[in-house]
Amino acid sequence: MIETRHQTELLALLRDEGPMSRVELGERLELPRARVAAEVARLGELGLVEVAGPSASRGGRRSTLLRLAGDLRILGVDVGATSVGVAVTDAACEVLGYTVEDCDIRQGPHAVLARVVELAEKVREEAPGRLLAAGIGLPGPVSFAEGMPVAPPIMPGWDRFAVRDHLGGLLHCPVAVDNDVNAMALGERHSGVARSLDDLIFVKVGTGIGCGIVLGGKVYRGVAGTAGDIGHIRLDDYGPTCACGEVGCLEAYFGGSALARDALTLARSGRSAFLAGVLAERGEVNAHDVGLAAASGDFGAVNLIRDGGRRLGQVVASLVSFINPGMVVIGGGVAQLGHQLLAEVRSAVYRRSLPLATGNLPIVLSELGDTAGVIGAAWSAADRAFTLSS
Amino acid sequence: MIETRHQTELLALLRDEGPMSRVELGERLELPRARVAAEVARLGELGLVEVAGPSASRGGRRSTLLRLAGDLRILGVDVGATSVGVAVTDAACEVLGYTVEDCDIRQGPHAVLARVVELAEKVREEAPGRLLAAGIGLPGPVSFAEGMPVAPPIMPGWDRFAVRDHLGGLLHCPVAVDNDVNAMALGERHSGVARSLDDLIFVKVGTGIGCGIVLGGKVYRGVAGTAGDIGHIRLDDYGPTCACGEVGCLEAYFGGSALARDALTLARSGRSAFLAGVLAERGEVNAHDVGLAAASGDFGAVNLIRDGGRRLGQVVASLVSFINPGMVVIGGGVAQLGHQLLAEVRSAVYRRSLPLATGNLPIVLSELGDTAGVIGAAWSAADRAFTLSS
Repeated sequence: MIETRHQTELLALLRDEGPMSRVELGERLELPRARVAAEVARLGELGLVEVAGPSASRGGRRSTLLRLAGDLRILGVDVGATSVGVAVTDAACEVLGYTVEDCDIRQGPHAVLARVVELAEKVREEAPGRLLAAGIGLPGPVSFAEGMPVAPPIMPGWDRFAVRDHLGGLLHCPVAVDNDVNAMALGERHSGVARSLDDLIFVKVGTGIGCGIVLGGKVYRGVAGTAGDIGHIRLDDYGPTCACGEVGCLEAYFGGSALARDALTLARSGRSAFLAGVLAERGEVNAHDVGLAAASGDFGAVNLIRDGGRRLGQVVASLVSFINPGMVVIGGGVAQLGHQLLAEVRSAVYRRSLPLATGNLPIVLSELGDTAGVIGAAWSAADRAFTLSS
Repeated sequence: MIETRHQTELLALLRDEGPMSRVELGERLELPRARVAAEVARLGELGLVEVAGPSASRGGRRSTLLRLAGDLRILGVDVGATSVGVAVTDAACEVLGYTVEDCDIRQGPHAVLARVVELAEKVREEAPGRLLAAGIGLPGPVSFAEGMPVAPPIMPGWDRFAVRDHLGGLLHCPVAVDNDVNAMALGERHSGVARSLDDLIFVKVGTGIGCGIVLGGKVYRGVAGTAGDIGHIRLDDYGPTCACGEVGCLEAYFGGSALARDALTLARSGRSAFLAGVLAERGEVNAHDVGLAAASGDFGAVNLIRDGGRRLGQVVASLVSFINPGMVVIGGGVAQLGHQLLAEVRSAVYRRSLPLATGNLPIVLSELGDTAGVIGAAWSAADRAFTLSS
């Protein structure tokens, strides 16, 4: 849809800084007025830009303010291992409607994406408008360029499934496909705790452990798209076996399955009365129970979180020394583990990383929680829709 | 000197891709012909751009090729702990003259920078021209924005010394100050083994251990300028004491002083006949001797390198999982340790990092060796000279 680099720049400027006059746009982009007028007229024809009203006077004749068209809609989709969330936003990625429900990713792409489309129809009724683009985050490695998951460990049936093309066909709009953690990082950067920060790392601790890297305001994906995949950094050559087939990975110590495994051991050994109670009542214990147990002061569960937090902190400390970010955000399914986990990670990072790198480094919990992923996915979709397709 | 963003873009294009006609420049930058003509005329007045001759015919009237002015000169300076190298290059950072000599950084900034100016005069005689800018790499943390070292551990007297202003005053040109490892990374990216690669990490193993990160073709410095400072990542809470005051740092295991310390132990214990011989003859042993001993097949020295290489590899493996670079380049004072060290690092990275991240990952030795730093410093200087000063 977009025809020139200048159109991309104009749209991004209006999105990021709100309504502006032609004169201001020209000054900001160092473009002649005639060129701005021509590009803006074209964006108007495409239905992307509209008149917002007269600007505040700067002395002379009042000029007209332009803004992104108010009827534009973007969909943000966050597919997790066990849930799916869908949001509809305006062109500036402000959420206008949102829904989330349980959904097992192992149903495969056809069933899950069909449900995504149903949920999208539902939320779009709350905020009707013209659908510009959709973004979707998936819980596994994604080839961003091809718009598909590649060898995802916990997504049977999804390997190299053409999510971008399939979902684009169902929704009749361009689709951007990304890793869920990258989307969460973008979400926090756009409207969460990391607003206005250009360099941050977002660490997700949930079923899997991963890391989204934002550098210079953009997601950094690496040459093969695997940047941030810290769950399989090996901490010990003789550590526990991981779902990925290797041993000693961070995830094998502190991912969702590892926590469930250790919780079961605790419950059976009698070292946790809380978890033993859950096991007796329900016949199983999971990572969520560990959080509840720790919150109730159960010593065994607290130790589990501290131990895992120390290992996670060890990895994060290396990343901080290496990349010197402006903030570390911790999110994912850790709401219950929150502050105890945070304390351990902080302690490890502040002890092990360079003073210069940690001097002004906030290490904080995610602010958006569940909606970080959908907002980030919508942001990715807007970026894609506003970019010159080559 | 530079007045508009378009001038910066024009200069960078001519530097990176060689002579071009006005029409080509306009097409590449999506600028109207009149604008290109005006900007080029201004760059001509500034003496930055000149006519290179007629272009190959494209059917119609032959157009004129433009290039960076041939008489422009840039200085690249690489200050190490024990040496100083100075190169003079053209505006495209091709080396026209180079000299290097021993120099103890502990003499302090006044003495060292005075010597830099003498060496600069010497190399400039080999390639006379108009000095556009100078770049200098220093072996410690640098505030790039302020142009000065900040709390450098091995540079007594240099802390917050205004290198940019002082050297600029002596040379009468703008000066860019950077960390030596960042400069080396840029040098390899511009004209060494990493040519044409946008994402790479350069690991320097010498007196200190550090890492230069190039992402999207640019040095990534982090929010406080400490990105890449991997020498002080803590490997063991109960490890050897480091010069930085902490314990268990990578550098405390494998930096130049650590190697010298371990070599002395080896020599005294009788576990290395080679090093014992050096100690008896010279009264001391250093990291360089370890390399010579290993090259001669001395078992104790080989073990020292393998042990250090394994620890370095462990750190590099985390970085590879995290940043998913296109190449890892190993350089610094490791010429003699070269291939044994490389083998250990490769083994650790390929064993510990993600298959997707290591599938196409070359781990190689620096190609430029001593001149990586001066070329990178010149590149930094050119970037600075070509950038709109704000």
